[in-house]
Amino acid sequence: MAVDTPKYVIGVDFGSDSVRALVVDARTGEELADDVAAYKRWGQGLYCDPAANQFRQHPLDYLEGLEECITGALAQLGPDAGAYVVGIGIDTTGSTPGPVDKNGTPLALLDEFKDNPNAMFVLWKDHTAVAEADEINRLAKSWGGPDYTKYEGGIYSSEWFWAKILHILREDPAVRAAAYSWVEICDWLPAVLTGTEDPKAMKRSRCAAGHKAMWHEEWGGLPSEEFLVQLDPLLAGLRERLYQETYTSDQRAGDLTSEWAAKLGLPAGIPVAVGAFDAHMGAVGGGITANTLVKIMGTSTCDVMVGSYEELAEKTVAGICGQVDGSVIPGMIGLEAGQSSFGDVYAWFRNVLSWPIEAIGPEIGLTPEQQASIRAKILERLTEAAAQVDPNETTVLALDWLNGRRTPDADQKLKGALIGLTLGTDAPRIFRALVEATAFGARAIVERFRDEGLQIDQVIAQGGIPGKNEFVMQVSADVLGMPIKVVRSSQATALGAAMFAAVAAGLFPDIHGAQKAMSSGYAKEYQPRPELKEHYDRLYREYQTVGSLLADALRRL
Amino acid sequence: MAVDTPKYVIGVDFGSDSVRALVVDARTGEELADDVAAYKRWGQGLYCDPAANQFRQHPLDYLEGLEECITGALAQLGPDAGAYVVGIGIDTTGSTPGPVDKNGTPLALLDEFKDNPNAMFVLWKDHTAVAEADEINRLAKSWGGPDYTKYEGGIYSSEWFWAKILHILREDPAVRAAAYSWVEICDWLPAVLTGTEDPKAMKRSRCAAGHKAMWHEEWGGLPSEEFLVQLDPLLAGLRERLYQETYTSDQRAGDLTSEWAAKLGLPAGIPVAVGAFDAHMGAVGGGITANTLVKIMGTSTCDVMVGSYEELAEKTVAGICGQVDGSVIPGMIGLEAGQSSFGDVYAWFRNVLSWPIEAIGPEIGLTPEQQASIRAKILERLTEAAAQVDPNETTVLALDWLNGRRTPDADQKLKGALIGLTLGTDAPRIFRALVEATAFGARAIVERFRDEGLQIDQVIAQGGIPGKNEFVMQVSADVLGMPIKVVRSSQATALGAAMFAAVAAGLFPDIHGAQKAMSSGYAKEYQPRPELKEHYDRLYREYQTVGSLLADALRRL
Repeated sequence: MAVDTPKYVIGVDFGSDSVRALVVDARTGEELADDVAAYKRWGQGLYCDPAANQFRQHPLDYLEGLEECITGALAQLGPDAGAYVVGIGIDTTGSTPGPVDKNGTPLALLDEFKDNPNAMFVLWKDHTAVAEADEINRLAKSWGGPDYTKYEGGIYSSEWFWAKILHILREDPAVRAAAYSWVEICDWLPAVLTGTEDPKAMKRSRCAAGHKAMWHEEWGGLPSEEFLVQLDPLLAGLRERLYQETYTSDQRAGDLTSEWAAKLGLPAGIPVAVGAFDAHMGAVGGGITANTLVKIMGTSTCDVMVGSYEELAEKTVAGICGQVDGSVIPGMIGLEAGQSSFGDVYAWFRNVLSWPIEAIGPEIGLTPEQQASIRAKILERLTEAAAQVDPNETTVLALDWLNGRRTPDADQKLKGALIGLTLGTDAPRIFRALVEATAFGARAIVERFRDEGLQIDQVIAQGGIPGKNEFVMQVSADVLGMPIKVVRSSQATALGAAMFAAVAAGLFPDIHGAQKAMSSGYAKEYQPRPELKEHYDRLYREYQTVGSLLADALRRL
Repeated sequence: MAVDTPKYVIGVDFGSDSVRALVVDARTGEELADDVAAYKRWGQGLYCDPAANQFRQHPLDYLEGLEECITGALAQLGPDAGAYVVGIGIDTTGSTPGPVDKNGTPLALLDEFKDNPNAMFVLWKDHTAVAEADEINRLAKSWGGPDYTKYEGGIYSSEWFWAKILHILREDPAVRAAAYSWVEICDWLPAVLTGTEDPKAMKRSRCAAGHKAMWHEEWGGLPSEEFLVQLDPLLAGLRERLYQETYTSDQRAGDLTSEWAAKLGLPAGIPVAVGAFDAHMGAVGGGITANTLVKIMGTSTCDVMVGSYEELAEKTVAGICGQVDGSVIPGMIGLEAGQSSFGDVYAWFRNVLSWPIEAIGPEIGLTPEQQASIRAKILERLTEAAAQVDPNETTVLALDWLNGRRTPDADQKLKGALIGLTLGTDAPRIFRALVEATAFGARAIVERFRDEGLQIDQVIAQGGIPGKNEFVMQVSADVLGMPIKVVRSSQATALGAAMFAAVAAGLFPDIHGAQKAMSSGYAKEYQPRPELKEHYDRLYREYQTVGSLLADALRRL
């Protein structure tokens, strides 16, 4: 191609409910087209049992969605667009592991297992492995060897790789017998596109391995065979069939196969970057840099930072989800934290307030449309009303742990609270307290990073909330006492994946170069209001005090 | 009259918003007729400032209402009914004092003061005298003489007699100059009917004096002149213009004047009993007896017990509202406690849940009738849904102090709380927790009585809630671990006043005789479910633990 030939890259973002493809001009960062494909089986509720916190996804949902969204996005650009694509980057949810056979085929793609949820991918939010996570934590602290949870905040979660594998192996003898190895979807999908069948040859994501599988160079990779067998003899031999090496996402997982090139309308042989988790690539897409916390704010938050080797050489940040060399930006230590519920807290209150409309509306003649209309407007109107409440004239204080606490100091048994209620407390005051509580939860993470010696000067915000709710963002800035920049792109996660595609394709020497050329910039910056500093400093201390006082009771309830 | 002549008595119950007259056949307790008159000026919101917690009532509201409801009730029984009436008993709210001149005329009945709220009666729930109550408490503990708060639970309230008097005297020089003495409405209304003009000759209620004015035989009646002057020289000389003696309600305040007899259509000269507070007469109407707690359950609760002289000779029950010889049943010690909010807690949650309907309903075309319909059904539907929630499958725990805590250990600065919230917590679960919390608040009072050596075997319930909400009553029985009997009469308070009328008229030798003859019996008895005992014992301990942990924070908020 000539020098002026367009160079497109595609970022593919596998979310919890759907997959999105974003086509970006790698020279300018211009977002040319995007398309979203919902997971079909998932959308029907198949293979899940929400009451038991079982959430499984069928590999066909991913494969069908991948094809649909890439071809859909390219179709918007005309028949020749595919020819300009020079690389693909992929991010996914995680930890979302699944069992594969010797050929790297997820068991659910075999006829024998096609309807068996245990043969599918175990979505990040599946909590069926609580008991196994407890066992891992106990053993890691007591077995006499390294504490393998050290770089994962010191507490292994039921949402993660080994807990889920062990749970399935115990639960399902047929899957146990057929599972040769296990893959995260961020490893499997690049392997599919590049035709890598041997699980041991798949280029495994440093991000997934380091944050969720207790992989670290300090102990030569994955936890030792001895540890794993002590955990459960069912794990014997699996370590050898997983991986030794891991890779950062500026590297090629391989080249696009002819078969997939044809399906997708792309040139065969273009590079596919090593995969990583959505929050980590999203942070890159949002412009992460030193001394900056990137918050991906939606139903929950993922909070990502990078630190230099010097800052973090001899230290682990206590109580966060993990710190992994190269998990965000190659050459720096990636740090992950997050809030278990953020927008979900607001949605919870909307659901509570919707109860009369749903329980009584029909019998007094409200149409389904009227019911839906009220429900749809609740958060907007609550936001307007809460913004009018003088922060000094409300007595309500909330704890935001309605879905437990992820960081600092993960504790799924914590719960939410509303305290300081009076007969004059109305719905907007409660909502204001909930918004403040989610901001306090954000501040607790920031303060932990600072207590551990990291410097944070600003926050970059992206995800569903920042573009949608100015009040939440302003309160967050007020409570954090720092400016918050809102990423312009509404697809910053897919944009991050596209940046990695561009580096893997050799268009930039490193991810910094890709960020510089392709960043979308910022749509808005929120400044903390100095007149509220003292108020929120005081209220944050109350939040901490009340949280400490109530923690044991909340665990018991 | 012949032996078989009917003997009617009238109980008049002056409530917060209206006055009710109940005509009862004293031989059988049959409730023949009743009528209610709303206070007209009060209904228009006159003389009140809810934002400042100022609640004043004009004496004309009482006088007009008294005439309206008695004549209204009698009218239902035909033209001759009044002739059969042999006595009148009166109960009122309290402490609701007001200033009078030398002729016993409330200042607001003088032209000069007719629109001055400070010249009116200061309703029980008026909280303008918070500072004065604090001063009384400080002085009572420090002045070197008796602690006059001793028989009022050790904490004097801004809702009571002396605090209110002192506040008005300080606030209003004109009222100060004109106020010769002060009267509770339970003292003034019998005085009006019996033509007693001299404030010093009015037969003052033992109930009001003992529970609210720190009157006790131990120190020779009211607090000493020395104490009062030390509190504020403005009080100098008032003690002498108040009263020395107090009277129980089995005694005559006097005889009905010809003037009032004509107005009301009653025989002149029939006895009017000494007045008392509503809860105390209500407890008698409900059938109070030894080892029984009577709960009058409405927006708040009044909890009344009686103890023998032997039980309580040398002891004061800590942290309750008062213990007064003869305030309930002559010859026994009356004990008063209560919950600052009960039904108000449920109404609060209804208001919160109504917010979307009121804020969004109009714009999507809900008629005012539809809005009102939803609102009106919320508590009923919530109750149904909450009753279906398995108590073991909800994690929510509430504190019921949304209007502060009256007893045990009065503390207006406490506030409510909802803890243990999860994303799965729905409106019925919150409502269930609120109902449980009001029952825990009830249990805290029962346990305080027991800790202080009183025996409680059962609860008698009356008021607005017991006949209306079976779920609340069943949870209350479960949490208390005791049977709860619901009084059949829906006018038990006025019935109690009628019983005192019957005793004052000489129809029975004492109030026990009147109770035996005139009691309405019980409509229903709730038994505690043994299978929930352990659960609620545990949850009650959590309520106590969480309440203790949070108390300081709740006061600060």
